[in-house]
Amino acid sequence: MFVRLARIPRITRHYRLGLFSTQPKPKPNEYLYYRNKHKSKMEAPIKRSSSAVSLVELEREPFKVTVIGSGNWGTTIAKVVAENTKANPQVFQERVDMWVFDENIDGTMLTEIINTKHQNVKYLPNIDLPENLVANPDLLKSVEGADILVFNIPHQFLPKIVDQLRGHVEPHVRAISCLKGFEVGKKGVQLLSTYITEELGIECGALSGANLAPEVAKEHWSETTVAYHIPKDYQGDGMDVDHKVLKLLFHRPYFHVSVIDDVAGISIAGALKNVVALGCGFVEGLGWGNNAAAAIQRVGLGEIIKFGQMFFPESRVETYYQESAGVADLITTCSGGRNVRVATHMAKTGKSAEDSEKELLNGQSAQGVITCKEVHEWLSTCEMIEEFPLFEAVYKIVYEDVPMHKLPEMIEELDDIVVAGQ
Amino acid sequence: MFVRLARIPRITRHYRLGLFSTQPKPKPNEYLYYRNKHKSKMEAPIKRSSSAVSLVELEREPFKVTVIGSGNWGTTIAKVVAENTKANPQVFQERVDMWVFDENIDGTMLTEIINTKHQNVKYLPNIDLPENLVANPDLLKSVEGADILVFNIPHQFLPKIVDQLRGHVEPHVRAISCLKGFEVGKKGVQLLSTYITEELGIECGALSGANLAPEVAKEHWSETTVAYHIPKDYQGDGMDVDHKVLKLLFHRPYFHVSVIDDVAGISIAGALKNVVALGCGFVEGLGWGNNAAAAIQRVGLGEIIKFGQMFFPESRVETYYQESAGVADLITTCSGGRNVRVATHMAKTGKSAEDSEKELLNGQSAQGVITCKEVHEWLSTCEMIEEFPLFEAVYKIVYEDVPMHKLPEMIEELDDIVVAGQ
Repeated sequence: MFVRLARIPRITRHYRLGLFSTQPKPKPNEYLYYRNKHKSKMEAPIKRSSSAVSLVELEREPFKVTVIGSGNWGTTIAKVVAENTKANPQVFQERVDMWVFDENIDGTMLTEIINTKHQNVKYLPNIDLPENLVANPDLLKSVEGADILVFNIPHQFLPKIVDQLRGHVEPHVRAISCLKGFEVGKKGVQLLSTYITEELGIECGALSGANLAPEVAKEHWSETTVAYHIPKDYQGDGMDVDHKVLKLLFHRPYFHVSVIDDVAGISIAGALKNVVALGCGFVEGLGWGNNAAAAIQRVGLGEIIKFGQMFFPESRVETYYQESAGVADLITTCSGGRNVRVATHMAKTGKSAEDSEKELLNGQSAQGVITCKEVHEWLSTCEMIEEFPLFEAVYKIVYEDVPMHKLPEMIEELDDIVVAGQ
Repeated sequence: MFVRLARIPRITRHYRLGLFSTQPKPKPNEYLYYRNKHKSKMEAPIKRSSSAVSLVELEREPFKVTVIGSGNWGTTIAKVVAENTKANPQVFQERVDMWVFDENIDGTMLTEIINTKHQNVKYLPNIDLPENLVANPDLLKSVEGADILVFNIPHQFLPKIVDQLRGHVEPHVRAISCLKGFEVGKKGVQLLSTYITEELGIECGALSGANLAPEVAKEHWSETTVAYHIPKDYQGDGMDVDHKVLKLLFHRPYFHVSVIDDVAGISIAGALKNVVALGCGFVEGLGWGNNAAAAIQRVGLGEIIKFGQMFFPESRVETYYQESAGVADLITTCSGGRNVRVATHMAKTGKSAEDSEKELLNGQSAQGVITCKEVHEWLSTCEMIEEFPLFEAVYKIVYEDVPMHKLPEMIEELDDIVVAGQ
């Protein structure tokens, strides 16, 4: 094991516009005009992130990783992680434990099937899993000795799992939550990662992006965002989890990972996108076409950013429009999935959200239906409803029977122009 | 006629977070924690644009408006404009001239049909047009006495039209170009609006957004962006075209308009979106699903912003992610249309762009195929190709037969992480 986690500058051309005088000159043109006009602003070098090499050298034992959860997304992420631990033995212990809520499948336990057949036949059939991924039915045993916990269970099971883990996780352990979003409750708007941090006393980041589990499992190319804030008790370079370690843990040729600081930003985007998707479903169901759906997404992105800036001002605007967890996940979610289906059904049949959920989802909820209510209640408490006309319009359509064809006028920005004499 | 173009403050609650102490208090929570922590940042009032009333009072004759062009988008915009001139006689002359490249339709001239039947039977059939919209086959007569010109013709006809207009347009005339984008030529990257300004000596803005003409014509709700820069020879409030006048001219209950300054931003987005749409078509044709298409759009939005910042630094980042002409138009364009169809066909059949265009578009071009080449040549001149891996990947796939399954690795941001000892 080595000692440093260093960043070595690579000799590279930094595309510095101010250096153009020594380069083949473009012809006189608008661009040069602007360059001269804005020279000071343009002096900064524009680099790609590849302009330096990051070296990872641990001065501790390789990290042990455990994935908690084995649904289709849990198993998929466990597959990704296990591929990377195998590929990077200097940084990670090869074996990855995956906690499985065990169940009997035609006489054989699911964990046994996973550990012998190396497929999760129940939740991710026909996908081969790495042999260094070990299904473990015992939650506490699965986290024993773990340095990194990856939470990937359905939202509603989180409190119970956290209860069981309490007292069994060392403070130096780091976590990444693949659960999306936030909860609005008696503590106000709380990120799920913050909940984990507060309940278990461990630093917790988040992973979110435009990722449909079956596509990632089939190794169709997609992107994701990992957000992690270096904690106050950071053990030092080479000793602790940092952004480079997380990139090594999650990035695959088919699963491109961007690692950032902004846990709040990706969590907010991950929750509120579902409300926007309901709006898209309404206009789709009304037959208003792509223009209208794009407009809903634009307005929705604006309100997501505003919500983030207002309630989590440490979140960065760039996260919403630059990251997979932001605009890309919004686009994917608005192009299909439960929320769009329920809303489209409501528009086409005139039925309530509840009835539509019963018919389409066996009574399960579309997440946007829950979130728009939580958001409405929170914004009411803050008297901020008028600042978020789209979120409020979706709420009113779902819960107060406001006709959905009124959506445009409910979100119209009139600027109140009055013409004298008319 | 009156004298002012004034902004009258309306008594309204400005949602000022700092005022919360006098409001019903939300319970202690994260939000309050952040509010206190970031108090100085949060003191600014958060207003909707509707928090003030704008009064338009002209101290001159109402503006005469002429639309140049009568294709499906030209006729649609003429319909929008004529509805608004009729509704606002204090600001606009009711009659709107629409220049029509006249043609004989079964023995009757198209202009005559439009002026009697009030439908453009050739290019926008079955849509009733306002009777105050007058089709005019004579270009120079149609612009006589016009104060506002709205250009809405196919890109390739612009130079010829501008040639004919030269010397026949007064410098006080203002223009809005509905033509998208820019041209890369001997003058470098030139906005079409700049071309009009330079050739005719009149200030020219742009209109662009997520607008499919038939949807807008049917009055299905959509949004658009109008960008206009107040010129140096601005005649003064009440005397000249400004943002409020443009909002009155284009905004309809079914066609929501946002008016901004950033002509460059919406023009760049309008051109480059077509390149991104080719990328989306490739991954769609490869069967990679929604994740991949969303990833292409995310990367594309990033490169559009970078292109804007680099070559038109006066353009604003917000334009790209907040405006209909930015992110919404990108989403619409990537969800269908010529570029996506051609690229999907290439992916599915292995045929070249040229052959695909022949089969699908009767040999017409998908705009992205032209633009990606122009952009490549421009970036080569500037030695900036490596800064725009997606644009370059699309170019290489279209013109250099690079296999499209290499797209992900061509745009991968590896961060060049090296693990010691591996």
